[in-house]
Amino acid sequence: MTYTPVDYNTYDFANRRHIGPSPEEMAEMLRVVGTASLETLMDETIPASIQQKTPLGWAGLAEHELLAKMREVAAKNKVMTSLIGQGYYGTVTPPAIQRNIFENPAWYTAYTPYQPEIAQGRLEALLNYQTMVSDLTGLPVANASLLDEATAAAEAMTMAERSAKSKARAFFVDRNCHPQTIAVIKTRAQPLGIEVIVGDPAMMEADKVFGGIFQYPGTYGHVTDYTDQIAALHGAKAIAVVATDLLALTMIKEPGAMGADIAIGSSQRFGIPMGYGGPHAAFMSCTDALKRSMPGRIVGVSIDSRGNTAYRLALQTREQHIRREKATSNVCTAQALLAVMASFYAVFHGPKGLRSIAERVHFSTVRLARALKAAGAKVSPDAVFDTITVEVGVGQAGILAAARQEGLNFRKIGNDRVGISLDETSDERVLISVLRAFGIEGVPPHRAELGFPETMLRQSDYLTHPVFHMNRAESEMMRYMRRLSDRDLALDRAMIPLGSCTMKLNAAAEMMPITWPEFGSLHPFVPVDQALGYKEAIDDLSAKLCEITGYDAMSMQPNSGAQGEYAGLLTIAAYHRANGGEQRNICLIPTSAHGTNPASAQMAGMKVVVVKSAPNGDVDLDDFRDKAAAAGDKLAACMITYPSTHGVFEETVREVCKITHDFGGQVYIDGANMNALVGLVKPGKIGGDVSHLNLHKTFAIPHGGGGPGMGPIGVGAHLAPYLPGHPESGGEEGPVSATPYGSASILLISWAYCLMMGGEGLTQATRVAILNANYIAARLNGAYPILFMGNKGRVAHECILDTRVFADCGVTVDDIAKRLIDNGFHAPTMSWPVSGTLMVEPTESETKAEIDRFITALLAIRAEIQSVQDGDISAEDSPLRHAPHTVNDLVAEWDRKYSREAACFPPGAFRVDKYWPPIGRVDNVHGDRNLICICPPLSDYEDAAE
Amino acid sequence: MTYTPVDYNTYDFANRRHIGPSPEEMAEMLRVVGTASLETLMDETIPASIQQKTPLGWAGLAEHELLAKMREVAAKNKVMTSLIGQGYYGTVTPPAIQRNIFENPAWYTAYTPYQPEIAQGRLEALLNYQTMVSDLTGLPVANASLLDEATAAAEAMTMAERSAKSKARAFFVDRNCHPQTIAVIKTRAQPLGIEVIVGDPAMMEADKVFGGIFQYPGTYGHVTDYTDQIAALHGAKAIAVVATDLLALTMIKEPGAMGADIAIGSSQRFGIPMGYGGPHAAFMSCTDALKRSMPGRIVGVSIDSRGNTAYRLALQTREQHIRREKATSNVCTAQALLAVMASFYAVFHGPKGLRSIAERVHFSTVRLARALKAAGAKVSPDAVFDTITVEVGVGQAGILAAARQEGLNFRKIGNDRVGISLDETSDERVLISVLRAFGIEGVPPHRAELGFPETMLRQSDYLTHPVFHMNRAESEMMRYMRRLSDRDLALDRAMIPLGSCTMKLNAAAEMMPITWPEFGSLHPFVPVDQALGYKEAIDDLSAKLCEITGYDAMSMQPNSGAQGEYAGLLTIAAYHRANGGEQRNICLIPTSAHGTNPASAQMAGMKVVVVKSAPNGDVDLDDFRDKAAAAGDKLAACMITYPSTHGVFEETVREVCKITHDFGGQVYIDGANMNALVGLVKPGKIGGDVSHLNLHKTFAIPHGGGGPGMGPIGVGAHLAPYLPGHPESGGEEGPVSATPYGSASILLISWAYCLMMGGEGLTQATRVAILNANYIAARLNGAYPILFMGNKGRVAHECILDTRVFADCGVTVDDIAKRLIDNGFHAPTMSWPVSGTLMVEPTESETKAEIDRFITALLAIRAEIQSVQDGDISAEDSPLRHAPHTVNDLVAEWDRKYSREAACFPPGAFRVDKYWPPIGRVDNVHGDRNLICICPPLSDYEDAAE
Repeated sequence: MTYTPVDYNTYDFANRRHIGPSPEEMAEMLRVVGTASLETLMDETIPASIQQKTPLGWAGLAEHELLAKMREVAAKNKVMTSLIGQGYYGTVTPPAIQRNIFENPAWYTAYTPYQPEIAQGRLEALLNYQTMVSDLTGLPVANASLLDEATAAAEAMTMAERSAKSKARAFFVDRNCHPQTIAVIKTRAQPLGIEVIVGDPAMMEADKVFGGIFQYPGTYGHVTDYTDQIAALHGAKAIAVVATDLLALTMIKEPGAMGADIAIGSSQRFGIPMGYGGPHAAFMSCTDALKRSMPGRIVGVSIDSRGNTAYRLALQTREQHIRREKATSNVCTAQALLAVMASFYAVFHGPKGLRSIAERVHFSTVRLARALKAAGAKVSPDAVFDTITVEVGVGQAGILAAARQEGLNFRKIGNDRVGISLDETSDERVLISVLRAFGIEGVPPHRAELGFPETMLRQSDYLTHPVFHMNRAESEMMRYMRRLSDRDLALDRAMIPLGSCTMKLNAAAEMMPITWPEFGSLHPFVPVDQALGYKEAIDDLSAKLCEITGYDAMSMQPNSGAQGEYAGLLTIAAYHRANGGEQRNICLIPTSAHGTNPASAQMAGMKVVVVKSAPNGDVDLDDFRDKAAAAGDKLAACMITYPSTHGVFEETVREVCKITHDFGGQVYIDGANMNALVGLVKPGKIGGDVSHLNLHKTFAIPHGGGGPGMGPIGVGAHLAPYLPGHPESGGEEGPVSATPYGSASILLISWAYCLMMGGEGLTQATRVAILNANYIAARLNGAYPILFMGNKGRVAHECILDTRVFADCGVTVDDIAKRLIDNGFHAPTMSWPVSGTLMVEPTESETKAEIDRFITALLAIRAEIQSVQDGDISAEDSPLRHAPHTVNDLVAEWDRKYSREAACFPPGAFRVDKYWPPIGRVDNVHGDRNLICICPPLSDYEDAAE
Repeated sequence: MTYTPVDYNTYDFANRRHIGPSPEEMAEMLRVVGTASLETLMDETIPASIQQKTPLGWAGLAEHELLAKMREVAAKNKVMTSLIGQGYYGTVTPPAIQRNIFENPAWYTAYTPYQPEIAQGRLEALLNYQTMVSDLTGLPVANASLLDEATAAAEAMTMAERSAKSKARAFFVDRNCHPQTIAVIKTRAQPLGIEVIVGDPAMMEADKVFGGIFQYPGTYGHVTDYTDQIAALHGAKAIAVVATDLLALTMIKEPGAMGADIAIGSSQRFGIPMGYGGPHAAFMSCTDALKRSMPGRIVGVSIDSRGNTAYRLALQTREQHIRREKATSNVCTAQALLAVMASFYAVFHGPKGLRSIAERVHFSTVRLARALKAAGAKVSPDAVFDTITVEVGVGQAGILAAARQEGLNFRKIGNDRVGISLDETSDERVLISVLRAFGIEGVPPHRAELGFPETMLRQSDYLTHPVFHMNRAESEMMRYMRRLSDRDLALDRAMIPLGSCTMKLNAAAEMMPITWPEFGSLHPFVPVDQALGYKEAIDDLSAKLCEITGYDAMSMQPNSGAQGEYAGLLTIAAYHRANGGEQRNICLIPTSAHGTNPASAQMAGMKVVVVKSAPNGDVDLDDFRDKAAAAGDKLAACMITYPSTHGVFEETVREVCKITHDFGGQVYIDGANMNALVGLVKPGKIGGDVSHLNLHKTFAIPHGGGGPGMGPIGVGAHLAPYLPGHPESGGEEGPVSATPYGSASILLISWAYCLMMGGEGLTQATRVAILNANYIAARLNGAYPILFMGNKGRVAHECILDTRVFADCGVTVDDIAKRLIDNGFHAPTMSWPVSGTLMVEPTESETKAEIDRFITALLAIRAEIQSVQDGDISAEDSPLRHAPHTVNDLVAEWDRKYSREAACFPPGAFRVDKYWPPIGRVDNVHGDRNLICICPPLSDYEDAAE
């Protein structure tokens, strides 16, 4: 027996992790599909003309090698105490929340709660979040989070525009807003033709604007009452927006009490690590009058089939079928996981605890200001919460350097001031260090007066709901978190066969580094030399994504897929402007496009022209050519998805690109289906000029129950100069997110995924994703019509099951989806892109066993449908209509026309490990008719404990 | 409004974590108990004569302060690549196992699976472990882990002694056993009068011994076939034990094939971090003939009330009612969590993967040996697996230093050799570094021959069970881990009101550091200067435990409570020997003592004299005095538990101590009930000479589903010189564990607990633990007779409910325990210390809400008993007898005399979040009659997927 290392190293632990089917299983699946090998299947699926022949060129790492590398890279970041403020603050993540939510796959692998019956846990947590935001801001309606404070401000502007009765076309922006907020508002305003007036609120001319935004505490520290300005806006039939800080609001008069219409801000400092920029949950709340104009997801309260309280996404159709070319917002991804964490932070501390933290922060700030003033420093403003500005003149560089010597980062403001923001972690040692940086020895005075006028003290109660007053012992908290997560079905229990999102494994090794302090504790605006680890990670990930996509440059700024679309279109628009194509404003989009496509185009100032689909689901090439020709020199871009949203590799993609280019347009290829391309097709090489990548689909970032996500864009070299800039990374213009690298910390997950998989692993993942989808199509074809296939009878990485054929007998797509819950599955994507269908995407991570369980379930459901079709049972009486079945059904009187056994243990359901939905089918209409989006007086939690 | 920091810092986040009841809840509870304050309750409960008046003297840390401190301390450990071997090896913990088991409270907070209906998940994992050990060692019966390899060897020796037909009184020990194994065997043998003969197996005289132990691979690397020696032992009617290595056994002939009777070793290198000594799971397997002599816990297969497969602890009565003064083993705590992890490591890799790892390790070793020999080094032995010894003569210090320069630790052997053991993590870089340490540049040759004779190649299959052949994609593994944990009820879902174990919160912040590599990656025998972080932690924890107990010195070596008892008694014996009291061999133990007390005394060579209990449960003082007098100058010690196992602070404790001292004996105070003492009573100050502390009861180490634990002992200054030594920490004698600090890494949990609580927090915890118990006693008194109270009507931290009064009507204590499962609770301790009773200990961590839920459940059960007593329903027909109720019951035909609703939703059960036991009541008799302790041919896992 002899040995060469190669022989034994091929027993590969890396691929196995993400690639579901074993080699033996794959062989069997290929047999069922009816093809010779993975390679032949690829050839039958992907047009030869676009197949990439050069393999991706890096080797994979084993898990322990990855973690060792990550530790090395982490060590290159320098963890300092950042008092930079500007919307990002030190905070303490309660370890129980870190361990039981942030590091718990039951929470982080969950999908957006579109199927409320399997999502009551996270819906309750998000309702707690909305209640917290509503209470603290003093406004009755809150959403379940937005991407970041700056985009929330931009969303508020457009919301004001569509709500205000004023006909003015300008928007006032308080100069005390954070610079990145102002910059993102300007980016957003420009293509919409909105004039942005930045100035002193005292000087605002209310009748010239449709709305205005004011910030307190201001970016330089000001605590100001905007009641008068808000009244002035109202007098001019304009809308008043307030940017604010949730911690400050535990002490300071809330926006609602000033009369504000909309409040926005970030909940980062409620226990979410800064993470070099994110992810964190931004919040938005508004008056009752504006609630139906609010962007983003809103959790609402409704009832289930037994009349019990049930949570679900309210006004849901707004999103999945986003209002396309009429849209004014393309918000889709939220920051659910971070909103959940922030809500638990509030539950953990309660109003008294939050107030105590706020008071400590505030009085420390006042003490610090007193000590500085006593030593002769020029400190402003007079009324502060947690932030002061110190005039240091030519000594600025020296003070900043002295601070760094003390392990502190101050904020550099202009060339003659520094900003200091205290936070929950600022203890006496920090105060002493700050003073020492100014050459002052000793402790600040212990007693302090209130640092703002007493008239600005908050008068109203907040967080009065019992959930914020539960016993805060860790045992109780841990059990509450466990109970909520147990109500939900996430990837840690079953496959989530969504066609609209790639729900693949989020491997443990990929998730571990993001909670290390070297990555979590970095303020987004620290000097570059403190973030060399991040730089290495981002640069290398960018390079790998360029290699994968065939593009030349990458922007990591967009923090969602829709943001990526928007940023990409802005890049195209800027390119045209710079190249004499200012008039180019038409964007061709096929009917089958995801709703965010036209919405993004709209936001980017483009006019959407819809292109027809051919009967086989492909782009209608003639119609495309006609409309491109009609647009002529007004053609800005086309937006296509590849493979198409119908799950097919269209043969004509190069032709579509060519036509667009022929008319001077740019090609945007939506990267939503990138999981069918990686390693096999490079969008940048088949005619694409720009694409966004959903890192939370293709590149292993978990969905977190509805966010975070990341949507970086790749572009050809000619577009690179027009990528979004950021004021904090060199003063460029056009930022789309609050920070230069969006939700930087989760980029590490995608990087880890790429590093561990290696080029060949990534390519194999694509092949297997396509195999898995074709296996499902092959096994289900006959039982369900499979819509749309390529010309060789293959689907891409997903397949569409037509259920409209059951309409005659009264069985709906909803019935099938809910019956899958009884089988222990999340439903596939419903009625998208075609109404009355189910779109299934298994991803490469699922094993044959799990896929077979899913097929078993769908075939059993088909048999139940057959019974209805055969007249053996009516649709109304069938288990399909009564699904999902709950324990309450089992325990209650049984008058059904089928047995309890048939109800609860259809084939596919586990016997011992069965998932029990906590509620029956939700009544959506009831909920939308009676929109309630804060915790009901008696929470489910209390009911549960009865 | 003015501010002083003190005002606001009193809003305390630390105490809140562990202290369950809120201040408002406490006030209400005190009212129900009928006392004015916590202080008056303490005065009513604890005799004034023993109350400690000086508060414990350190302040607590907040969670983030703790973690910051832990990071500082961690940085003082130096993480090197340790090739020391000697039973501890580098290994890769699969991140999915780390995240989903090691860092998951559903696994680590679980209790020992005495209640099988709520423990099927961990029982399955442990059965997988037993199957793995049985398969790899080639012996049909395996237990569910022992404390460490060295104590497993000692257990094997005593097992051989009681099983062998040979009448010899000596035990042969292979000189190739690890030094710590030999040392622990010697410690164990001495008080039992067993002669230990250490030597060359080839020279063994089989007829002079009742058994022998051989090790392969040997501590210096030898791979030897012991078939002949084993046959010789069998010829002499003696028992053959083999110490071995599970990874090696994937390539090398297994002990069973050599004819061994018993195999032992460690499963550490199956994915368990070295942790500076532990915890890891040792294993033991044996022939069918010896199975009923095996120490430790054995998981067996039985059936439930419906005849379905059900796992449970087999031969269980051996442990809870350990055979007292007839015992030959006191093993109680196992290493369940680590055994579970090791079993998942095997599932994760499967036989092919394990073999691949083994081959890589082996051929790397052979290549390294070749390269060293080629350069002229003297390398031995000839037949190796993973370990070589190099003769380096006077160059030893230089080579060791050169290795450290390369970041490597070699093993120092004598003064002229070094040992090198490779492991799973030894990649090409490590090989190159090793060679460089010897002054050799370049890579070792790539091709290698087998490093041991072909006759030693393993011939038999292993890990053939389907569970070791499941699809290894991480999604599948993650879901398997989740499914198993969901079957179990642990502290993360409900209180575990055990009287025999203190099941308190294991706070997330306390658990986090143990998985940091700076703590996990340290070999137990690294030079002290590489473990300065551990030194600081252990020294400070020792100092705090001394302050808490009133003792003068602490030994951290015992890695279980029973080990602590044993070590404490050995210390007493050594003290007597050194002080002319060699004849002192009588140990007085009250009838109420935990079974381990007499077992430990027996093992320490003492004769147990049992002392009666008075009717009130106290020690019968007259009997005690009489028996002490009778023992006279033979009195070695008394062992008492304080407060007593009956949950009462006996007034006479000082008197008992005085009598013992008067007769020259030493007082051993069992620290099992330390949770009722911390901060209020110091055992070392009321007459105790030595106590062990169950850190896994009182000091927040989680139970891990049946281990790990730690049982350090505190002693008075006069005993300090006689504490156990260890060959690896200065050559002292008498080690009781394999490493100087036992399971060192989990000491960090107790240290973190002490640091965060502060002295006052710990004391408050004790007060609240007593309050919680008295609250339960007050509320349940009347419904259930409360046995044993102090003279003021108070219990200590636990209370005993008498259920014998229901015997007339046929309701048993078992019925009540199982019915509690329907209510979502783990049963209290059953029938201990008094048969037919339930002992309840709520701990300080439980909130009033949770305790009230428990009381509600017990009162509802009492009402159900009343129905039986009133003749409304028979015991056989009642829900009590049919408990626990499963989903299968609900779905099946219902012919019960009560409703489904009454069955499944008794008061106390959650409605939405109900815990469903996966099986009905287990048939224990069936299982013990048909002992099966490896996976049944069709695993539950497969059943579940049906």
